[in-house]
Amino acid sequence: MKHFTSANDIESAPSLVEEGLILKADPHQSKIGTNKTLGLIFFNPSLRTRLSTQKAAFNLGMNVIVMNIGKDGWNIEFEDGAVMNGATQEHIKDGVAVISEYVDILGVRTFPELKSKEKDYSEQVLNKFKEYSSVPVISLESATLHPLQSLADLITIEQHLIKRPKVVLTWAPHPKALPQAVPNSFLEWIKLTDADVTMTCPEGYELAEEFTEGVPIVNDQNEAFADADFIYAKNWSSYTHYGQVLDVREDWTITQEKMRLTNRGKFMHCLPIRRNVVATDDVIDNSIVYQQAKNRECAAQVVLKKILEANG
Amino acid sequence: MKHFTSANDIESAPSLVEEGLILKADPHQSKIGTNKTLGLIFFNPSLRTRLSTQKAAFNLGMNVIVMNIGKDGWNIEFEDGAVMNGATQEHIKDGVAVISEYVDILGVRTFPELKSKEKDYSEQVLNKFKEYSSVPVISLESATLHPLQSLADLITIEQHLIKRPKVVLTWAPHPKALPQAVPNSFLEWIKLTDADVTMTCPEGYELAEEFTEGVPIVNDQNEAFADADFIYAKNWSSYTHYGQVLDVREDWTITQEKMRLTNRGKFMHCLPIRRNVVATDDVIDNSIVYQQAKNRECAAQVVLKKILEANG
Amino acid sequence: MKHFTSANDIESAPSLVEEGLILKADPHQSKIGTNKTLGLIFFNPSLRTRLSTQKAAFNLGMNVIVMNIGKDGWNIEFEDGAVMNGATQEHIKDGVAVISEYVDILGVRTFPELKSKEKDYSEQVLNKFKEYSSVPVISLESATLHPLQSLADLITIEQHLIKRPKVVLTWAPHPKALPQAVPNSFLEWIKLTDADVTMTCPEGYELAEEFTEGVPIVNDQNEAFADADFIYAKNWSSYTHYGQVLDVREDWTITQEKMRLTNRGKFMHCLPIRRNVVATDDVIDNSIVYQQAKNRECAAQVVLKKILEANG
Repeated sequence: MKHFTSANDIESAPSLVEEGLILKADPHQSKIGTNKTLGLIFFNPSLRTRLSTQKAAFNLGMNVIVMNIGKDGWNIEFEDGAVMNGATQEHIKDGVAVISEYVDILGVRTFPELKSKEKDYSEQVLNKFKEYSSVPVISLESATLHPLQSLADLITIEQHLIKRPKVVLTWAPHPKALPQAVPNSFLEWIKLTDADVTMTCPEGYELAEEFTEGVPIVNDQNEAFADADFIYAKNWSSYTHYGQVLDVREDWTITQEKMRLTNRGKFMHCLPIRRNVVATDDVIDNSIVYQQAKNRECAAQVVLKKILEANG
Repeated sequence: MKHFTSANDIESAPSLVEEGLILKADPHQSKIGTNKTLGLIFFNPSLRTRLSTQKAAFNLGMNVIVMNIGKDGWNIEFEDGAVMNGATQEHIKDGVAVISEYVDILGVRTFPELKSKEKDYSEQVLNKFKEYSSVPVISLESATLHPLQSLADLITIEQHLIKRPKVVLTWAPHPKALPQAVPNSFLEWIKLTDADVTMTCPEGYELAEEFTEGVPIVNDQNEAFADADFIYAKNWSSYTHYGQVLDVREDWTITQEKMRLTNRGKFMHCLPIRRNVVATDDVIDNSIVYQQAKNRECAAQVVLKKILEANG
Repeated sequence: MKHFTSANDIESAPSLVEEGLILKADPHQSKIGTNKTLGLIFFNPSLRTRLSTQKAAFNLGMNVIVMNIGKDGWNIEFEDGAVMNGATQEHIKDGVAVISEYVDILGVRTFPELKSKEKDYSEQVLNKFKEYSSVPVISLESATLHPLQSLADLITIEQHLIKRPKVVLTWAPHPKALPQAVPNSFLEWIKLTDADVTMTCPEGYELAEEFTEGVPIVNDQNEAFADADFIYAKNWSSYTHYGQVLDVREDWTITQEKMRLTNRGKFMHCLPIRRNVVATDDVIDNSIVYQQAKNRECAAQVVLKKILEANG
């Protein structure tokens, strides 16, 4: 593995899941990261991504340097050939090249602007990092994907040992326009397993075809929930009407009543979650969301380990 | 020791002081924290608390992750059952549960709002952390107590080897309304030693009875200072007239002249100190305040070590 | 070596360069920093200085604590004898004394205000740190000098193995008023080597005599570039007309055409660089600026190592 920015970067999802679980059982078995440094760059604030990735790196014996861009002061130029006599102080090209001189792996979190679909889906920032970094790049969530979350999700599902589980990805309400990164990525990864996947959302909330291809889309949430083993809830803004909040659709909140339609289904969410908006308290309090969150650690650890092994 | 949030959490103050001094003499004797991680959450800025606690953790071989809440972006909901369709993004319940999945000990600093006595003295935030954390919680100062400071204070007094010292806690002027955490906590802890404790403050500045019980309160500062071995100065806002700055009372500034009334008394303060307001330059320059500050390190270290031993 | 704040603090530049290159070849050869802690205080944001210094410390086995002043909340009083009843919360004297209790080496970055030449060139902040710190102080760039950058520059030049190289320090345009720290320091250090040094700048941009003494100053940039082995470009604001931006002088931008006047000269710059303002893209893309940046790591490492050895 060179970079880790999507499911395309890995050889086998099931074997990555298996190795993740082996590391989870004994997080300190390998100190392959000794004398290695992980750099983490956040263009947007992060709590659980930062913590879980730092912890994963510590487990492997790595040092970690965190940079919060903007707050730690860095106005970046993205345009090639720009005459930089305005506000930008450093070209992304130089910034990334220099940072990567000091670290062995570079993690970066970026977010979509949710204004131009073309711009966001071109993954401009992430791709500049891949282009200019002299070391492997890990996505800590990009404009359109969140592979470390998806790997943690697959590990969580695997822990329940259900053969060919029915997994339902459901849209849920939220007061803000959110990225499509988590649902895109979840579909990309879950399709690499033996799961039977269904997606349910109100009309107008379909995702890009590259992710939904082969996945049945049901607009009736109750119908979709029938016999599900896992309900994966997430809000996202419309891909078709890009960046708009179409309709809050409070009737899509996941309730205990809806969960009763499932096959004792486990409720999943990547957190943070708006309680009593995305799902009711009783649903969340009987869910596996903390297990998911905890699995962010072994997911990050197996990715770091694989990259260190391949680039050692 | 499970949590460390007040003197009630410990078995014996004198033995904790003694063990703290043993660690101070050789800070690297125990690497019990190897492969363990300390998370430090600050709802308010911190300098010496963060530094001393990080250093203490490093001494034990621990890794440290620091989170500055607000600045690092996290709008937290505290109300149970809230419909989170407004500004708050994550419920304290979920946030604390998740963070505690990634660390072995969780330190948290909160401050009082100094508006409602009931709210502050209920220690809402700290208690939510204790309730929802899956790992031990350390107070890095809470709304009403500052136990790590008090333990450092006791260690400092012990280093001077005075049998049954006369210790005077004195109110001092300050331009702002400050919490009662340091004086509350100092009284709570000093009463666990053999010291002869007196408190002196202008009328209206008495502290909560639970802390002052058994402690003589003298309104004449000069009278209180007579024969003192230690003068512990601190400003705090009125407990009775909660959150108000009653009166700056510049005549309460600690001066060399007042120190001459003592038994060659040592001047103590938790720092930061407003020079020539709380005390004059000459008093501070001949004090033991840096010794106190340095003892924050071994105080934090003995607490971390005890918790790791109890929860190993 | 006690402190490291200028070339006056070292014994021999050539031997420091040589030792830096030995560490660069094998950065993990010495773990002399085990159980030692480096504190880094930034009064202004920093990216490459923080990263390279953290990395250098990690290489030696040190722990690192970073403090961003202002953002992490600390209003400091610099005046002796001040009655601190206003905005300042802690005297520099107490703050530095306390911080230095928790670390083994203290790095500090300050910037000039570029208002009063006398104030900036008195290095008030840096000197207060040296005065009040109980441990060695390293300059991470001060108001008028940047010794870690200069050491990295000398290491870079040495790597090209040119006997008695012709080195030209050239002024370059920039839209803002910048400090003189980098060029001052470069002259101070380069004069300690066997290089043949020339400086070129528009009239009015001469530096302080203590740095330019013995260095020919040429106002014709093309004339200065002739036969140069290294072109060191940097903008700085006028020392004579202190703090003013005299004239952007776009004709001083370093271009490929100008580089052709040199002896296949290598282009150097401390970064970050305003592309197509300081120098054109093609000049930067064929330069040794990333090599320079990378050498910040071994420069910091050799300085930390020397200090640890001297104070062990």
